[in-house]
Amino acid sequence: MTDALAHTPASDGLAEEFLLELERRTLDDPGVTRDAYGDGEAAGHALLAEFAARLELPVTVDHGGNMYAKLQGTSSEKAAWVIGSHLDSVPHGGNFDGAAGIAAGLAAIANIKRRFDRPERSVVLMAIRAEESTWFPASYIGSRAAFGLIGADELELPRKDTGRTLATHMLGAGLSPAKLMQDCPFLSPSAIRGFIEVHIEQGPTLILEDTPIAVVTAIAGSFRHREAVIRGAYGHSGAVARRHRHDAVFAFADLVSAIDLVWAELDASAEAATITFGEVGTDPQLHAFSKIPGELRFSLDVRSGCARTLDHISQALGRICREIEGRRGVRFDLGPLTGSTPAVLSTELQEALHAYARRRGIACLSLPSGAGHDAAVFAQQGVPTAMVFVRNDNGSHNPDEAMRFDDLDCAIAVLTDLVSERQASD
Amino acid sequence: MTDALAHTPASDGLAEEFLLELERRTLDDPGVTRDAYGDGEAAGHALLAEFAARLELPVTVDHGGNMYAKLQGTSSEKAAWVIGSHLDSVPHGGNFDGAAGIAAGLAAIANIKRRFDRPERSVVLMAIRAEESTWFPASYIGSRAAFGLIGADELELPRKDTGRTLATHMLGAGLSPAKLMQDCPFLSPSAIRGFIEVHIEQGPTLILEDTPIAVVTAIAGSFRHREAVIRGAYGHSGAVARRHRHDAVFAFADLVSAIDLVWAELDASAEAATITFGEVGTDPQLHAFSKIPGELRFSLDVRSGCARTLDHISQALGRICREIEGRRGVRFDLGPLTGSTPAVLSTELQEALHAYARRRGIACLSLPSGAGHDAAVFAQQGVPTAMVFVRNDNGSHNPDEAMRFDDLDCAIAVLTDLVSERQASD
Repeated sequence: MTDALAHTPASDGLAEEFLLELERRTLDDPGVTRDAYGDGEAAGHALLAEFAARLELPVTVDHGGNMYAKLQGTSSEKAAWVIGSHLDSVPHGGNFDGAAGIAAGLAAIANIKRRFDRPERSVVLMAIRAEESTWFPASYIGSRAAFGLIGADELELPRKDTGRTLATHMLGAGLSPAKLMQDCPFLSPSAIRGFIEVHIEQGPTLILEDTPIAVVTAIAGSFRHREAVIRGAYGHSGAVARRHRHDAVFAFADLVSAIDLVWAELDASAEAATITFGEVGTDPQLHAFSKIPGELRFSLDVRSGCARTLDHISQALGRICREIEGRRGVRFDLGPLTGSTPAVLSTELQEALHAYARRRGIACLSLPSGAGHDAAVFAQQGVPTAMVFVRNDNGSHNPDEAMRFDDLDCAIAVLTDLVSERQASD
Repeated sequence: MTDALAHTPASDGLAEEFLLELERRTLDDPGVTRDAYGDGEAAGHALLAEFAARLELPVTVDHGGNMYAKLQGTSSEKAAWVIGSHLDSVPHGGNFDGAAGIAAGLAAIANIKRRFDRPERSVVLMAIRAEESTWFPASYIGSRAAFGLIGADELELPRKDTGRTLATHMLGAGLSPAKLMQDCPFLSPSAIRGFIEVHIEQGPTLILEDTPIAVVTAIAGSFRHREAVIRGAYGHSGAVARRHRHDAVFAFADLVSAIDLVWAELDASAEAATITFGEVGTDPQLHAFSKIPGELRFSLDVRSGCARTLDHISQALGRICREIEGRRGVRFDLGPLTGSTPAVLSTELQEALHAYARRRGIACLSLPSGAGHDAAVFAQQGVPTAMVFVRNDNGSHNPDEAMRFDDLDCAIAVLTDLVSERQASD
């Protein structure tokens, strides 16, 4: 570590300036709206182009509409560092989800430019389109487009608010969906030394643990039953003895309690998972306070960064349901199963980020990401991938997101260190 | 027991004839509709008057519209036996709920008349109005009217389907609500030797236990929280660790599982109760499959024939909620509490009914009634009260009620025995 770097201010206020101006341009009281392939997201990309021009970084846009601001390296044959996140938001969302990563990348590139003028490897800031699946019913549209992973059928997906297709919205944004289908992918995994995404934490762990940043260990995979149902038998609430009931609510409670025991054991052993029954209800058409509930519908969302843990919970779920069916005289129909594979993040980059944080005296946790991020696409393409979480209160996807700029500076500092010091052909 | 009585046919087909004709006159596909203080109920009362005339029983109607068909006793100063049930039904209900008790009473009085011509005590068959609270939002209107227990404010209650008041409906049925308020009550507890109600079982116990009848031990009291809510905190389903959650669904499962343990203990010790969470749901406006549920609403209906058991469960409920609040970081708001006191039925009459069943070789259980019945009003007025349940499949309040007439004959037999043999001033 050079003394110069140790004393480099992390951001010089650039990240804060970008985020405040972005908020001003995309305000949609309450919060901000940066609609994917719409005016809000376009305003974000236009602002990034202005900031890139200030830093004299040339800008490119791929057929998917992702914007790349590049600090050209001296060895153009060497794989480049890519720093990126998304610039869209949910409707009336918070200003930091996604945009904080772009702001951090801008500040890090400014730092690197100040230090090296031109580093050996190119450093690219990538503003990714359409990460929030609230707009189009698909995940990671922008980052998958960059790798040529969008199917022709996905171009026909309607945006939830306008009803117009992804292709129509792309055309409206001045892009060519036809070329996206025909041309070679813009990004090639072998040309990328590593991908790093800075993102606000969407849970409360860093707040509760009083720590500014975390290095992410994995992006959770999941298995999901969105439309599960327990079927028992309706009956008079006062006229059926306990032993003769087929009560869907008691059966559900058995399920939740048994799964909670499985979860508690995993939690104690640090094989982190999350288990959520987000939507639960008896049938409003048929239920009554004086009727034994003959049916209960529920959703189940299980996430973990560890595929073995997902498998363990899935097997326990089946075993528990069968046991309850026998005991309570009910039937479980878990309905369609969807899910995704966990994305393993680079151990090398994780260790390096922890080392830089330690050297700077920045407290830093290791956390899994329960939410999905574009980084998962890069990891699944074989790109060494890292994520840094920044402390944030009140969750995300709402106007109350509360990230402090000095916490973002901590992320900018370790990001700058990583990209600055890993310039050799390591 | 006289030999004559032992060989008396229980019904001679009279009960069956009454019920089939009643069904024919009140059909409302699917099922029957006998609306309280409306045409359907009036058709039932008119039919009863016809059958009473066939048996040469004089008929009286009180100001509440209850009909009394009387077999006059020789000792008119002696307290009379009253056999009764209701003739209204729910909309598109089954034919037997209520009416089976009237049919049984008709058959029993026919048997007694055949045996004694005139018994020592009068025997009165009472057809009670408006037992089903589906019509007016009040319980036991007819039987309470007979004892002068209807308040003037209740006359203003609207019928759910017509919106017209109870007073208007009474006037339409040719009654005088003004006289109901002014005159002395039609029934006096001291003038009644005992009240006996035959009713179909509304649960499956007699079906499952393969037994034709049961003597009822008590009519359950209850405590109810119709609008309870658990409040926790919403959060991203993947981004909040187990220890940081305030999950209303897991808290609810804890509650149900803990209450189930309390219930299982009571069940094992025969202090019968029923516990039903009939309406359960997360908030459809705010929930999502990928969101930790921050709120869950539920109803709770606890019933028991034993006041001490209700109290025990109520205390356990409070203790359990407090424990869960501490552990899960949620708040329970159980909302308004309503309920009723259990009605204890006459031990003397229960024992007598069991003895008569035994003597006739009729299998007979002891069961609590989880549902409410007019018999509760008589018991609470201090009248020695008994109920006999008749085996019935598919519950009640629906067109699929399935009572067999030979099971009803078993109830008629023990009812006949009780009223025939308890004629002395015992």
